[in-house]
Amino acid sequence: MLTRMTYGTLIVLRHGESEWNASNQFTGWVDVALTDKGRGEATRGGELLKERGLLPDVVYTSLLRRAITTADLALDAADRLWIPVIRDWRLNERHYGKLQGLNKAEIKEQFGDEQFMLWRRSYDTPPPAIDPTNEYSQTGDPRYANLPQVPLTECLLDVVKRFVPYYQAVIEPVVAEGKTVLVAAHGNSLRALVKYLDGISDEDIAGLNIPTGIPLVYHFNEDGTVANPGGEYLDPEAAAAGAAAVANQGAK
Amino acid sequence: MLTRMTYGTLIVLRHGESEWNASNQFTGWVDVALTDKGRGEATRGGELLKERGLLPDVVYTSLLRRAITTADLALDAADRLWIPVIRDWRLNERHYGKLQGLNKAEIKEQFGDEQFMLWRRSYDTPPPAIDPTNEYSQTGDPRYANLPQVPLTECLLDVVKRFVPYYQAVIEPVVAEGKTVLVAAHGNSLRALVKYLDGISDEDIAGLNIPTGIPLVYHFNEDGTVANPGGEYLDPEAAAAGAAAVANQGAK
Repeated sequence: MLTRMTYGTLIVLRHGESEWNASNQFTGWVDVALTDKGRGEATRGGELLKERGLLPDVVYTSLLRRAITTADLALDAADRLWIPVIRDWRLNERHYGKLQGLNKAEIKEQFGDEQFMLWRRSYDTPPPAIDPTNEYSQTGDPRYANLPQVPLTECLLDVVKRFVPYYQAVIEPVVAEGKTVLVAAHGNSLRALVKYLDGISDEDIAGLNIPTGIPLVYHFNEDGTVANPGGEYLDPEAAAAGAAAVANQGAK
Repeated sequence: MLTRMTYGTLIVLRHGESEWNASNQFTGWVDVALTDKGRGEATRGGELLKERGLLPDVVYTSLLRRAITTADLALDAADRLWIPVIRDWRLNERHYGKLQGLNKAEIKEQFGDEQFMLWRRSYDTPPPAIDPTNEYSQTGDPRYANLPQVPLTECLLDVVKRFVPYYQAVIEPVVAEGKTVLVAAHGNSLRALVKYLDGISDEDIAGLNIPTGIPLVYHFNEDGTVANPGGEYLDPEAAAAGAAAVANQGAK
């Protein structure tokens, strides 16, 4: 006889404002730090978790310090800094290719609105590849030494292909065991995850923006399907304002 | 034919000043935060690692935030925040029993120098057990839910018994593989480790004090014995001053 476990809870958290969010630069895999505002957002995210009694049993992060520090600050605020931590490059932000380090407003002005939005939101067209010798390339970075090939650019489809199978193989079974799982990552890796969880089409995902620092909570049915499609933001008003701000990036 | 690996490097780091170090209270398993000074010590520890090219491949911490945050700040400064992290209660500070939360100078005055030093430095006599209902007891703390019994007090021998077998079973094999391993922990759990590494007697260990925030580095011979007995502090002058300050705790 099989014992059925009740599914646990998945909490998705996009990192708080980074230095390059603040300076309006394409970031991708460049490892920039949080701003003080971003640190405050992360702490506030953890306080929301604590207020709601949503206490993570385990946390997954990318290999980038803005996600790692966001997880640390949120968990410290929730008194859960001691839980097991797993970091994996598959949770990294989308690699932004040759755009990494460039100013969003300047790129928009130089290349026009259409090209700008294509680079930001096309599902299957990546930006031009970065030169491996570019100062903002990750070729040779020791944290990616185990990868057969460090990306030179990625579209959202590339992120889906690396992150969703990892989620299915590694994270989903932990949620299925009944655990409360925190995933602290990035705008585009979390869009890839939400696309999978909510069954969003390749077209419609372009319109989905995830705000920074506000926990997004998914519950599941016994068969593993999402019980609350779209998830629940713990601070819905701030989430709506935050998503609008993300959609508006590139404005001067 | 066996392939012999060259042993790696072990870096031992005691957490920076905590709120209760600053207020001169016995801490043990109470989960207090670092002070700003302690955060600065941790960052400086990471800078020393970076300057010397001692870049950890993996980090082990206790379940207490003062060690976890010390590791995070040091690794961030060394640009290694992304390495794998393992947390285990066996690296925790010695449980200080009924003394947890009490002021060191007051205890010294109330019970006298001899009793005070016995509680601090006796190898095999623990302080009186804490009442499980005491606000500073860890009985019922979810982070210790998997322990058969949460300690009510510990002497250094108890710490040796829990930490040294864990070091031998889990950490030493990783060092033996050639990795650079960071162990971020506490005054007494690190005294237990150093006692093992340097073969210090039960009597002589009473005189060993480990300063906060200064990396202590061990190299190994091919047979796994310590190549540099006593290890090497990356900032020897600061280490000597720090050890003297630890020895002098309890003074008003």
